[in-house]
Amino acid sequence: MDTVTRLSLDAIVVTNGTNRRYLTGFTGEDHAPDESSGVVLVTATTITLFTSPTNEPWARAEVRHGVDVLPATRPWTAGVAAECRARGYRRIGFEDATTSVRDHAALSRYLESGIELVPIGDSVDRLRAIKRPEELAAIESALAMTDTAFAHAAARIRASMTERELADIVRAELRAAGSDGEAFPTIIASGPNAAKPHHAPGNRAIIKGEPVIVDMGAKAAGYCGDLTRTVWVGQASARLVTMYRLVSDAQAAAIATVRAGAPAAAADRAARDVCDAAGMGANVIHSVGHGLGLRVHETPSMSQTSRDTLHSGQVITIEPGLYIQGWGGVRIEDVLLVTDGGARNLTGASKRTA
Amino acid sequence: MDTVTRLSLDAIVVTNGTNRRYLTGFTGEDHAPDESSGVVLVTATTITLFTSPTNEPWARAEVRHGVDVLPATRPWTAGVAAECRARGYRRIGFEDATTSVRDHAALSRYLESGIELVPIGDSVDRLRAIKRPEELAAIESALAMTDTAFAHAAARIRASMTERELADIVRAELRAAGSDGEAFPTIIASGPNAAKPHHAPGNRAIIKGEPVIVDMGAKAAGYCGDLTRTVWVGQASARLVTMYRLVSDAQAAAIATVRAGAPAAAADRAARDVCDAAGMGANVIHSVGHGLGLRVHETPSMSQTSRDTLHSGQVITIEPGLYIQGWGGVRIEDVLLVTDGGARNLTGASKRTA
Repeated sequence: MDTVTRLSLDAIVVTNGTNRRYLTGFTGEDHAPDESSGVVLVTATTITLFTSPTNEPWARAEVRHGVDVLPATRPWTAGVAAECRARGYRRIGFEDATTSVRDHAALSRYLESGIELVPIGDSVDRLRAIKRPEELAAIESALAMTDTAFAHAAARIRASMTERELADIVRAELRAAGSDGEAFPTIIASGPNAAKPHHAPGNRAIIKGEPVIVDMGAKAAGYCGDLTRTVWVGQASARLVTMYRLVSDAQAAAIATVRAGAPAAAADRAARDVCDAAGMGANVIHSVGHGLGLRVHETPSMSQTSRDTLHSGQVITIEPGLYIQGWGGVRIEDVLLVTDGGARNLTGASKRTA
Repeated sequence: MDTVTRLSLDAIVVTNGTNRRYLTGFTGEDHAPDESSGVVLVTATTITLFTSPTNEPWARAEVRHGVDVLPATRPWTAGVAAECRARGYRRIGFEDATTSVRDHAALSRYLESGIELVPIGDSVDRLRAIKRPEELAAIESALAMTDTAFAHAAARIRASMTERELADIVRAELRAAGSDGEAFPTIIASGPNAAKPHHAPGNRAIIKGEPVIVDMGAKAAGYCGDLTRTVWVGQASARLVTMYRLVSDAQAAAIATVRAGAPAAAADRAARDVCDAAGMGANVIHSVGHGLGLRVHETPSMSQTSRDTLHSGQVITIEPGLYIQGWGGVRIEDVLLVTDGGARNLTGASKRTA
């Protein structure tokens, strides 16, 4: 891997589970931060996956050509350190954002003195930002399933249906569309609940004219779809019409900033400017989007403090929202491919015209 | 919290997401190891939850009486350190198994020199092992839903049905039983696939007489069910009958060791002894069980190397399995409550008699 050479390392110990999948093709997921399904040792020319003897046949069946699979001892740090010593490595990078203090201490202990452990931040995560053609195809497939599921679910929304019932419909439609299920827990937030960006669907029944935020995504071949629409039953209230148009304008302004070479923060700034101008700046309570791929949230950062520059081949969401405590909210989200000429919208789901 | 006093600390910084829920009641989940939904600062008498401004209203609505909620800055380490300095803490514990090297370094940097960060291992996890009465009720409820879903799904198994189709039925039945869905991805492993303990359901069609391992669990109010049954369509093959009886005997032997005060490792040893005596010791490839609660796998460890002692009020699984490459496998899993007098079996799902 180029990163190994660029950082003047002999190897990198990869503990981030998503990076593990990206580098090896092994789909085993971590049960929890302290319950890993495997660790990868990467050099300039080799990729070695350490996984439990239980997972070994599964891993061997899945890994890409050229990836070696070795059984992980318990703790895995002992086996990885032994391999590093045997191969004579002196300078070893590690992912400090996903390596625990405990594992780092154990790794240090098992290595010989004189072997250096170097924190490499998100260097491996960053490799995932620009999508390979087959990754882009997988994302487009997940998005198409998401669009289909949304269309079917939206057609079934009725007043007096509960948020939970609608979430069940969304989940069923995501599977019926051919996906492996939800990329994240579906959000259905109606009326005042729509003021909470991460509301969990509950037993509240939908009322005519109020906003209903539907935030959903299919998972397919490991890749995530992500779609938000704000819908309503019957006639939208006057306030909802105003808010919807504002968020729609904010989204258009943000999308207009997206192109290879542009600062990622420009999109958030553009959306905030539209809301500020309408006196609603205080009702913007989250950043305008995020990168999308094997993870729902990944590089590049699309927040107002992001120092990332957009690159051709990146996939991002643009999802401005406005939230009013006690009343509700509006959020509209599309997924975009960054190209040299601007943004290509990968989302096909229809938007209401308020 | 007693642990703070026992370890002579001023406070503990809790980064483990399950421990966060346990201590505060806030149900927000971490998107990934490096994408936390909040951090908890615990003292002998106070519990403070730091979460993003976006999550704050949700957290306030959910936290237990007496838990304070503060907005987390980015990075959270800055805000937690500022709070610790303001309160004059000198000795602060942290969970080294779930705190990343990056966050630990940042926390050290933001604290004043002279403030000590002390690794506390799994001291907080261990609090979760002995279940409170309301936790036991939640687990029993998740298990009852799991039993119901299994009974309905088992009645629908047919030859020529694919593993994936059966997994879809299980998922639907888990929801129909009133749960919040799967506690973990359902395993359906038929014929030779049953030799892989963690097999992901695929397009293989079930054949009469071969083993079909069904490993499933409902999630309800955050707590996990866990159930494994090995079933078959029509008449079991002679080999399956032999294997099934052996695993059944191994399970009974393991369960017989379970009681408060007994070494946890005794159960694994007892199951292995039964398999060894039948010349099948090499076909035992995983430990006999695990603790169960908010996490599918938690304290106590039930492996042969466990140094844990069982205590009244702990909830564990006993799930011996035998696996033969090219043929398949058998696994049978029940959930047990450890009591002074022995094990109380909390699983109600019927077992086949081979």
